Amino acid sequence: MKAKSFAAPAADKPLEYYEFDRRELTSNDVELEVHYCGVCHSDIHTARGDWGEIEYPCVPGHEIVGIVTRVGENVKEFKPGDCVGVGCMVNSCGKCEACKKGFENNCFDEVIWTYSSKDPIDGTDTKGGYSTIMVAPEHFVMHLPESLDMAQAAPLLCAGITTYSPLQHWQVGAGKTVGIIGLGGLGHMGVKYAKSMGAKVWVITSSPDKAETAKSYGVDGVIISSSEKDMADAANKFDFLLDTIPKAHDLTPYLKLLNIHGTICLVGPIEPMPGYHSGDVIHGQKSIAGSGIGGIKETKEMLAYSAEHNILPEIEVIKIQDINKAWDALANKQMAKRYVIDIRNSF
Amino acid sequence: MKAKSFAAPAADKPLEYYEFDRRELTSNDVELEVHYCGVCHSDIHTARGDWGEIEYPCVPGHEIVGIVTRVGENVKEFKPGDCVGVGCMVNSCGKCEACKKGFENNCFDEVIWTYSSKDPIDGTDTKGGYSTIMVAPEHFVMHLPESLDMAQAAPLLCAGITTYSPLQHWQVGAGKTVGIIGLGGLGHMGVKYAKSMGAKVWVITSSPDKAETAKSYGVDGVIISSSEKDMADAANKFDFLLDTIPKAHDLTPYLKLLNIHGTICLVGPIEPMPGYHSGDVIHGQKSIAGSGIGGIKETKEMLAYSAEHNILPEIEVIKIQDINKAWDALANKQMAKRYVIDIRNSF
Repeated sequence: MKAKSFAAPAADKPLEYYEFDRRELTSNDVELEVHYCGVCHSDIHTARGDWGEIEYPCVPGHEIVGIVTRVGENVKEFKPGDCVGVGCMVNSCGKCEACKKGFENNCFDEVIWTYSSKDPIDGTDTKGGYSTIMVAPEHFVMHLPESLDMAQAAPLLCAGITTYSPLQHWQVGAGKTVGIIGLGGLGHMGVKYAKSMGAKVWVITSSPDKAETAKSYGVDGVIISSSEKDMADAANKFDFLLDTIPKAHDLTPYLKLLNIHGTICLVGPIEPMPGYHSGDVIHGQKSIAGSGIGGIKETKEMLAYSAEHNILPEIEVIKIQDINKAWDALANKQMAKRYVIDIRNSF
Repeated sequence: MKAKSFAAPAADKPLEYYEFDRRELTSNDVELEVHYCGVCHSDIHTARGDWGEIEYPCVPGHEIVGIVTRVGENVKEFKPGDCVGVGCMVNSCGKCEACKKGFENNCFDEVIWTYSSKDPIDGTDTKGGYSTIMVAPEHFVMHLPESLDMAQAAPLLCAGITTYSPLQHWQVGAGKTVGIIGLGGLGHMGVKYAKSMGAKVWVITSSPDKAETAKSYGVDGVIISSSEKDMADAANKFDFLLDTIPKAHDLTPYLKLLNIHGTICLVGPIEPMPGYHSGDVIHGQKSIAGSGIGGIKETKEMLAYSAEHNILPEIEVIKIQDINKAWDALANKQMAKRYVIDIRNSF
């Protein structure tokens, strides 16, 4: 099937129109017409080669929502017309302990990412949701709860699960004080989930102009990270910090904000991090943790939770022709919302 | 009271005989005649100035066991003749959340260490257990269970609690696979506690000649860290790694040994650590944690646990006159045992 898309032709080139053949449907695959695709900072990092060499052209996009058009003969859970989502991965080994426990995102062998991975089914480079057609194995396709708006649901598949999973894993809830570092696409979802789980939630931001936005989400306080006073006042305050800053940075100032037994969890930067003083984790029995998306099982739980608690991202819907402008805006200024591409009406 | 001791006169000088006046007993203090004092790698680090500038002469020693000789008028829990221990700290603010919860070792204000801290009671530099007399506030003195041998009990007060506390905090037990990195004074205690808690326990060591020692403790396996095959075979194996290496090192090879949701806990190095790739914690939702000694409450629990399960260190008893040789041996070659100074018979 011929798919229309926007792709990066090289690490340093803007995205441009690109047509390619989606691989044939196998017996376990689901094909969907893509309606919406969220724009994630990872799209930029990957296409720009920040995370290693990739093949070009690169068709990004891993917050994909659409309508099923065809299913393979062994597919049981989906039928044409179903409203579904595909997130950051489209395959894994399925055999290791991580996969068997439902954490395909942590596969001991190799996670096949939705774009810029080698597809084990036909050996081609995987291509993401900045395109009109998507094909993925049934196991990696998820039903969308009916109450969710399709455009708003798209970012749940990466920004949603990336914040939901660590907040659940580290048992954020009533009686806990949580800080969300960074108020971008991930951060604003982290605020909403942590609030819904019953925690006291603060935003820690380098942008004083984000304070009002944070307050509009009902946060319990805002810390400006460049303010020595703000940071000193918040010493030992937080049981859990969700760090959504999308580039490497020194954790030292943030480790000092942790309460005894506190954890700072990195979900933003995926790159070499600077050193730290071990005394800053030894004193207080603290942890520096990481978390990336989530398994399929917990992604389904996240979709149900989001529908039940009406947790949805702030979005701005754009046409694919505006994608380069959106990337620039995202790279230059963290948005306290998510761009979502209206794929269906773009081509 | 005049105390006899061995002290470091300077960062680069051997320890030598030194007499000083112990501070007067206040109404809340306990005085003890020191019988035994364990030799900890921290003694060397502190006296050598590795952890910052200190006052000299420095009288090290924070694994102190002795017999109570006098008590202040408000002291309720102790009387002359009691067999007691003093560990790594002799005061804390007592008012912060950490202190109130029993984690004086993580005091938000300042922990007063047993040596080379400024004593808030008289403003002098604290002096440790390489000396004949010790004075400490009642709260920081602990009864020793009767069944414990005094010499063997001494290292429990640092090596014991430093390994017991994180193993308890991270819920090591049946069904968990634990790796103890380094088989020195801390490591061999970690092996014994983890085994007693029901975990499968492996030792990870850079010294092939430690393999036999490890096996004599009944470990489930030994990994030689310089063996690429050993390390590759152990990928994703461990739920918890207790890292007792006493100097800064790259955690990358060890992070790859962690199972999903695994934690590596630093108890050895207290210094600037090199960077790491955040992907190594993000993939697998892993944690780099730290832990240092324990609160008084859990140190008492550790003493009771050690007595109940007969967990005691391997020790070699020395006279104080051999302390410089012992330090050299400790610095040059990690011992799978602990030196304990027979203070009472040294002077």
